[in-house]
Amino acid sequence: MRDTVLSDILLREIDRESSVPLVRQVYEIIRQLILSGTLRAGTRLPASRGLARELGLSRNTVIFAFEHLQSEGYVVSATGSGTFVSDTVPDLPASVAPVTEALQPLDPPHLTLSRRGTEVVRNAQASSTQWGAFVAGVPDVSLFPHDIWVRLLKRRWKQPDPNLLTYAHGAGYYPLRRALSEHLRIARAVRSTPDQIIITNGIHQSISLLANLLADSGQVAWIENPAYWGARTVLKAAGLSTVAIDVDAEGMAPSECHLRTPPQLIFVTPSHQYPLGTVMSLARRRMLLEYARVQRNWIVEDDYDSEFRFDGRPLASLQGLDTHDRVIYLGTFSKTLFPGLRMGYMVLPKSLSAHFAIGLSDMYREGRLIDQAVLADFMEEGHYAAHIRRVRVHYARRQTLLRDAIHETFGTDWPISTREAGLHLVMHLPDGTDDVGIVLAARSLNISVRPLSRYYASGPGRSGLLFGYASVPDDQIRTQFKRLVQVIVPALEHVARSDSFR
Amino acid sequence: MRDTVLSDILLREIDRESSVPLVRQVYEIIRQLILSGTLRAGTRLPASRGLARELGLSRNTVIFAFEHLQSEGYVVSATGSGTFVSDTVPDLPASVAPVTEALQPLDPPHLTLSRRGTEVVRNAQASSTQWGAFVAGVPDVSLFPHDIWVRLLKRRWKQPDPNLLTYAHGAGYYPLRRALSEHLRIARAVRSTPDQIIITNGIHQSISLLANLLADSGQVAWIENPAYWGARTVLKAAGLSTVAIDVDAEGMAPSECHLRTPPQLIFVTPSHQYPLGTVMSLARRRMLLEYARVQRNWIVEDDYDSEFRFDGRPLASLQGLDTHDRVIYLGTFSKTLFPGLRMGYMVLPKSLSAHFAIGLSDMYREGRLIDQAVLADFMEEGHYAAHIRRVRVHYARRQTLLRDAIHETFGTDWPISTREAGLHLVMHLPDGTDDVGIVLAARSLNISVRPLSRYYASGPGRSGLLFGYASVPDDQIRTQFKRLVQVIVPALEHVARSDSFR
Repeated sequence: MRDTVLSDILLREIDRESSVPLVRQVYEIIRQLILSGTLRAGTRLPASRGLARELGLSRNTVIFAFEHLQSEGYVVSATGSGTFVSDTVPDLPASVAPVTEALQPLDPPHLTLSRRGTEVVRNAQASSTQWGAFVAGVPDVSLFPHDIWVRLLKRRWKQPDPNLLTYAHGAGYYPLRRALSEHLRIARAVRSTPDQIIITNGIHQSISLLANLLADSGQVAWIENPAYWGARTVLKAAGLSTVAIDVDAEGMAPSECHLRTPPQLIFVTPSHQYPLGTVMSLARRRMLLEYARVQRNWIVEDDYDSEFRFDGRPLASLQGLDTHDRVIYLGTFSKTLFPGLRMGYMVLPKSLSAHFAIGLSDMYREGRLIDQAVLADFMEEGHYAAHIRRVRVHYARRQTLLRDAIHETFGTDWPISTREAGLHLVMHLPDGTDDVGIVLAARSLNISVRPLSRYYASGPGRSGLLFGYASVPDDQIRTQFKRLVQVIVPALEHVARSDSFR
Repeated sequence: MRDTVLSDILLREIDRESSVPLVRQVYEIIRQLILSGTLRAGTRLPASRGLARELGLSRNTVIFAFEHLQSEGYVVSATGSGTFVSDTVPDLPASVAPVTEALQPLDPPHLTLSRRGTEVVRNAQASSTQWGAFVAGVPDVSLFPHDIWVRLLKRRWKQPDPNLLTYAHGAGYYPLRRALSEHLRIARAVRSTPDQIIITNGIHQSISLLANLLADSGQVAWIENPAYWGARTVLKAAGLSTVAIDVDAEGMAPSECHLRTPPQLIFVTPSHQYPLGTVMSLARRRMLLEYARVQRNWIVEDDYDSEFRFDGRPLASLQGLDTHDRVIYLGTFSKTLFPGLRMGYMVLPKSLSAHFAIGLSDMYREGRLIDQAVLADFMEEGHYAAHIRRVRVHYARRQTLLRDAIHETFGTDWPISTREAGLHLVMHLPDGTDDVGIVLAARSLNISVRPLSRYYASGPGRSGLLFGYASVPDDQIRTQFKRLVQVIVPALEHVARSDSFR
């Protein structure tokens, strides 16, 4: 098939009136041509620039469609020589990059994977870039006091207790749970005894554990709309149906209709809505707690980054308001220390904690007690609280620097998420701005931002960009943002009314 | 209800002709009395010794029934003052043990947990003892060269690379995968490129990942009968049905009838059947590979401890025989280094590896690249192979010491599992021996053995005891075994014919 034939088919089949995004249409048409054999293995696809011109589409639309086809293994890109329809499994030389990515062309996932596996791979959201400007959700790991950590590691490893090197059984290393219980009481007004705390290897494992132990396959979990993609992925993998509930200025806002069909689990980020940054109002908190008391469903409070509050008094956790043991509180050390530590925790109602300890041991066969002991030492010696105090100052300053840079370019009225907390902010974009296109174009500048619209489970999401500022050195924030402006401005020109924000 | 009333009810309701074990009957009757409210919260249960006498049962039967009730939260045991029917959530003082166990009385799991969660908690198998004589599946962590490990830790932590402290994306640290690929080729005849290797945090996560990506809820996995409990737990949590296929002298032996309804996944331990220790014959290996080639199902080879082969040449992996990319090879560092490391790996067919890297990132959000880097250094500097060679000599000697002790007491004809490999052996017991009773009695001597019958998914399993000898110092093997003989011998006296082994 020659290039002109492909562009003819695309011109004929693309529906510009459709509510299906153009990117999706281009992707789907080419995919079908490959699956039907019309485009055969080895066929070279036309260059994105020429094809975009012929179709009257933005080049980013074509590039993104190609990238999507590539990520699913339908096409392979060979640097310098173009994009080709995949053969099944050619033998490419092994990569030697330290953290390698999928370099081999893949069978399309539906040919080899289960239905749910295909869905996981097709909807994959984890970014391949996890360090640099402006990776969201990553703290400045270079500020981590590694000298103290090494000292504590050496001490524990000098004559290591065999009990810390074997399999763990139960909820985790007790002194760590004791230190956490104390810390959470002071920092987050979480009410717990150490027995209520379970150490996990992060939020994903915490969600997986509670979804398995508290809900059966087919039961419903409410999640916020928009929400962290990982919560949805893990809940779906556990067989749950997720119902996305829109968020308003007061937090998750279930309608009357929603309230009439109670879910089994309610997932919220009350302290700092992810990704919008709003704080759940006291009235909404009380409403949800009362609802859960009556319906006996479980509220899961994901308090992922609320140690980083820059203005005013820290807001108490939802768990601390709960008088009927309906809240499961999730936390992580990924934001306060470093993500690679893989250490998180959950605070459970007393009626659940022993069951969860058994479930954790049997389902996940945990260990890493020596790492937990080092972390307990780190907390008990005061380094944890000190580190949080220290980095909070940096993050507050970096947020301000980024806000200033945005305001300087786009005016002081430009809508940005609330300023009180966290590791990231959202720069909103006018309705209809192609935020995915901006993100892809930014990637070629080696800048990582994430598209707000992708955090919505359903319906047309708001357009915007997530910036992680925490890990970007002060002197790079303004320069990196100015580089990014090059790809934001052209995208705004395609928008009908550049002052219409939702 | 007075003690005599409870024993009257039990005497009336226990059916000595039933195929339901007496332990289970005692447990079930008391549980029903609690659920119905006949036995009320706070009621003290009679002492096990007196109750056993009145019922004409062994005391161990009563103790185990009570322990089972306690593990599920129906009763609470207060040291020195007896066993009581639980209240909902009394406020007990927090334990200060380093690795605490469930100390609080629980709501019965079915009142709070999901159906599947209740099943996980009720069938929990992970032992609370993970160190000491004769804990199965645990290597001698005190032989681990911690001085080398600390040196490598220090080097990596001196000026840590931020890329190693953030979230990992993909299959794991490339040099570790390269070192593993090379090691597995030499040690296990596994054929792979580094791209086919994915680093997980252990066998449980490996099974969870592949069950999600390769099978949908409701599909069937064949497992061996008997088998490792953890594989069953994880497969069930992923919504799969497990069909237990009996093992004969050549390994997993599916019947004609089984073969006519192909499963999605086939789980085997060909190098060293867990727990029986047999090696799968070449004929059976070829049969399974041919079956998988034709049916296009996946064979999962769990090669958990086959680095420890004491006699003759190491047996090649099943993966190495596979010419049609149907085998997924699972391994772990838990047996070769230490369980608390939580590091395992899988070797995937090329058609799957990139999909699995995406699935791992999105479902489990992994990290720990700095630990993976330390482990890569450990392997690249030759310490891994050297450590395995060194401990292999210890484990071979310890197995011989244990065999000699068994033979000395029970005669040289007493059936013991094959001697070539591994970290554990099985001492078989005559048909009908209460191996669970022996295990519980051993616990009071602070000796951990595990009952072979519990590894069978269905049907009356063979009776026997699993001994982990790897972690027991040479000079304790004989003395600890002699102590254990005190509880084995009385159990044998209850068996009709003490020479009938299956």
